[in-house]
Amino acid sequence: MSDTDLSAAIARIGRAARAASHEMARASTAAKDEALRALARRLRAAGAPLAAANARDIAAAEAAGLAAPMVDRLRLGEKVIATVAEGCEQIAAMPDPVGEISDVKRRPSGISVGRMRVPLGVFGMIYESRPNVTIEAASLAIKSGNACILRGGSEAIHSNLALWRLVQDALFDAGLPPEAVQLIETTDRAAVGHLIASPEAVDVIIPRGGKGLIERIAREARVPVIKHLDGNCHVYVDAQVNLALALKVTDNAKTQKYSPCNAAESLLVHRAVAPRFLPEIGAVFAAKGVEMRCDADSRALLAGVPGAQLVDATEADWATEYLAPVISIKLVDSLDQAIAHINRHGSHHTDAILTEHHPSAMRFLREVDSASVMVNASTRFADGFEYGLGAEIGISTDKLHARGPVGLEGLTSLKWVVLGQGEVRT
Amino acid sequence: MSDTDLSAAIARIGRAARAASHEMARASTAAKDEALRALARRLRAAGAPLAAANARDIAAAEAAGLAAPMVDRLRLGEKVIATVAEGCEQIAAMPDPVGEISDVKRRPSGISVGRMRVPLGVFGMIYESRPNVTIEAASLAIKSGNACILRGGSEAIHSNLALWRLVQDALFDAGLPPEAVQLIETTDRAAVGHLIASPEAVDVIIPRGGKGLIERIAREARVPVIKHLDGNCHVYVDAQVNLALALKVTDNAKTQKYSPCNAAESLLVHRAVAPRFLPEIGAVFAAKGVEMRCDADSRALLAGVPGAQLVDATEADWATEYLAPVISIKLVDSLDQAIAHINRHGSHHTDAILTEHHPSAMRFLREVDSASVMVNASTRFADGFEYGLGAEIGISTDKLHARGPVGLEGLTSLKWVVLGQGEVRT
Repeated sequence: MSDTDLSAAIARIGRAARAASHEMARASTAAKDEALRALARRLRAAGAPLAAANARDIAAAEAAGLAAPMVDRLRLGEKVIATVAEGCEQIAAMPDPVGEISDVKRRPSGISVGRMRVPLGVFGMIYESRPNVTIEAASLAIKSGNACILRGGSEAIHSNLALWRLVQDALFDAGLPPEAVQLIETTDRAAVGHLIASPEAVDVIIPRGGKGLIERIAREARVPVIKHLDGNCHVYVDAQVNLALALKVTDNAKTQKYSPCNAAESLLVHRAVAPRFLPEIGAVFAAKGVEMRCDADSRALLAGVPGAQLVDATEADWATEYLAPVISIKLVDSLDQAIAHINRHGSHHTDAILTEHHPSAMRFLREVDSASVMVNASTRFADGFEYGLGAEIGISTDKLHARGPVGLEGLTSLKWVVLGQGEVRT
Repeated sequence: MSDTDLSAAIARIGRAARAASHEMARASTAAKDEALRALARRLRAAGAPLAAANARDIAAAEAAGLAAPMVDRLRLGEKVIATVAEGCEQIAAMPDPVGEISDVKRRPSGISVGRMRVPLGVFGMIYESRPNVTIEAASLAIKSGNACILRGGSEAIHSNLALWRLVQDALFDAGLPPEAVQLIETTDRAAVGHLIASPEAVDVIIPRGGKGLIERIAREARVPVIKHLDGNCHVYVDAQVNLALALKVTDNAKTQKYSPCNAAESLLVHRAVAPRFLPEIGAVFAAKGVEMRCDADSRALLAGVPGAQLVDATEADWATEYLAPVISIKLVDSLDQAIAHINRHGSHHTDAILTEHHPSAMRFLREVDSASVMVNASTRFADGFEYGLGAEIGISTDKLHARGPVGLEGLTSLKWVVLGQGEVRT
C-alpha cells in the first residue's frame, strides 16, 4: 500500500471508531454486558474456523524459524480460549464505571460542582504476539464505553482477524456498533506511524511489548501514550524485621516467576540485619540457581553459602531488569539510603519494604516514588487482578493519569459537572 | 549563550529542582504553610526593590512600543501585590493534598490495597507577560509538595527575578530548600526547547499563553504537557426551558466578560423555543453591541430586532473562539443535534444546557464530551476558584490526567499502596 493509501485507510478507521465511540459512551450497562457475554459464548463456540486461522499463524511462524517459546505465545489452545472467555464474563459482572457522579459539593455561588466518570473516547492498542490481547483490549473497551483501534503483531494476524470477527458479531448481537472495535488489517509497519500521529483518530495509545517498541512509540507519538517501561522492582529488608517473613516474601518476589515485570530484581538489606538475613536468603537463591550480583559487603556475607553463584555487581546492575534468575544485592546503612537508591536506580514500578518499624513503613510508602509501594508483601502482587481491577490493559510507569495496573478506571476520565438553578457570575 | 552552554544550564537547573523535589515531597504541612505565609509577608513588604524591577520592565516595554493593554499586564501595582499575597494565604489555609490515603480495600489474598496522593515531582511552567503567575505557580508548587521550573516572558524578566528572590527567601524562612522553585534567568528562546525535551528535569510542562505557544510546546515536548487550547464554549437552550432563566444565563455567559476562555462563543437554540427566545436575547445582544453570526433560520427570527448586528455565519464560525463581543447562533431540531454539533465543533472546554427537562439535562451531562458540562448555570463558572480548588494553575482541555480547572489535585498523582502481613503470590 502506498503511504497515501495507508494514511487514508487509518483516517477511515479513525473516523469509524470516533463515530462509534459516541454510541458506546451512551450505551446502557445492560447492552455492554450482553456484548461481553455474547463474546464469551462466541469464543467458546468458535471451533474450527478460529483454530484454522491460528494454525496458519503457527505454521508461518514455524516456517520462519521462530523460537519455540515465541511460537507457543501465538497458540490459541482450548485453555487460552477458556481463560479469555471467562475474562469477558468477569468484566461483564463488574460495576459499570461510566456515569458515576461523585464529590458533588454546593458552592457559595449556589451551583453544585461534582465529577462524572466518562470514557476517554478512542484508545489505540499496539501489541505483539499473544492474540488473546485482542480479546482483553476489546472487552475492556466495551465495558468502559470506549471505542478502540487494535494493532496486533503481524505474526498473529490471522488469529487476530478471526477473533476480531467474533468481537464484531458480539457487538452486533447486543445492538452495539461493530465499528467500536477496529483492527488494522494491514501488517505494514508504517500503519503504526500514522495511527500514533492521529489525534483526531485516537485519544490515547497503549503500547504493550518490548521496551524498544514502547520507547519508539513514545518518541514518535503525537497523542498521549500510557507507557509501561521497565520493572526494576526492589525489596528492602529494614533493620527491624521478622526474619521468617522477610525470607518468605523476598523468595516469592524473586523466584515465584522470573519473567513478569513485578518480579524483584534488586535486594537492599539494612546493615544491622544483613549478617543474619543474607546467608539465609543466599541459601534459598543458591538452591534455586539464582545468580547474585553483589556489592563488596554483601558478597562478604554470602561467601560462605554453599553453591552460591556470586558475581561482583557493576553500576549497571542497579538499574537492570533481568527478568531471569539473577538478582542484585546491596547493603545500606539506613532507610534514607535505601529510599535514595530506589528513587535513583529504580524504574518507579513496584518496590517493597519489609519491616516491623511503623515509621519506616510510612516513610517508605510516602517517599518512594513508584507506582506501587508495598509494606510486608511480595512485589508480585502488583497486578490488576490482585488489586481488584478485574483485568488490566497494561501497567503504567507514567506519573500522570494512571499509575501502575490500568483497568477500567484508567480508560475513563473525570469531567466536571455543574448543576445550577440559573446562577450567573457577578 | 551557546546551545551547549544553554543545555548544560537547563540540566543544572533540572538537577537542582529534582533534588529539592524529594525534600518537598516529604516536607511537613506546617513547613509548607509557613513558607506560603512568609511569602505573603515578604510580598507585602517588598516595596522599592520590587517596584524598581517592575519599572525596568515597564520602561523597556514602552520603549519597545508595546500596546498599552500589554504594558498594563506587566504592572505589579499595590492591588496586584495584595491579591497575590492573599492568594498565598488562601493556599496556606487549604488542606494538604499530599499523603492522603483513600479507597483501602482488603483483597482475598489478605493484602490491603489503597491509593496515596503524592506530588508529581517537578513541573515546568511556561508563561507570558503577567509576572503574578510567578507567585501563583510557586505557591501551588509549594503546597502540592512539588518543585517547579519557571520560565516567564522576557518582557517581565526583571519583575520575575525579583519575585523569585522573595519565593526563595520564603522557602528558606520555613526551612525548605530554596532550590525547589527555579527560574530560568536567560531570556534565550532556545531554553524552552531544552526544558521541554528534558524528562529527567521535568515530569510535566504547563504552558500558559496564546494558542500558538501551546501548540508549539505540545508538538515539540518530550515530556507530558497539560494543555489549554481553545475555549469555544456553547450555551444550548432546550425546548422545555424557563425563558427568564435562559435569558439571564445566556446574557451572563456571553457578556459578563468577553476575554475569558469560559465565555460563551456559540448559542444553540431548540427550534420549538426559538421564536420566543431569540428575539429577546437578540435585543440584549443588540443593546450591548454583540455581533450575531447566524444560520439562515436564526437570522430570520432576529431580523426584526432593532439595532441587531446580524451576519451570515460561515462554517468556520462554529469552531471559532472570538474572545470578543461576537456570538454564533444556530437553531437545532433536537437535543441530539445540539450534542452532535457541540462534540464536532466545540473545543471540549465548557458547555451548558438550559432546560427544565430532566432527561435532556442528564443526557447532555453524559454525552457532551467536554471538561465541564453544566445545567442551568453560566459557562463563566468554569474556574478553579468557583469550583472550590482555591487557585488554578491552568485549565486543561486534555482528557487524560486533569480536565478543566487544574488546582492542587492536578499537580499530584495517586500511587498504589499495598499493606501486607507477609503475603506471597501463589
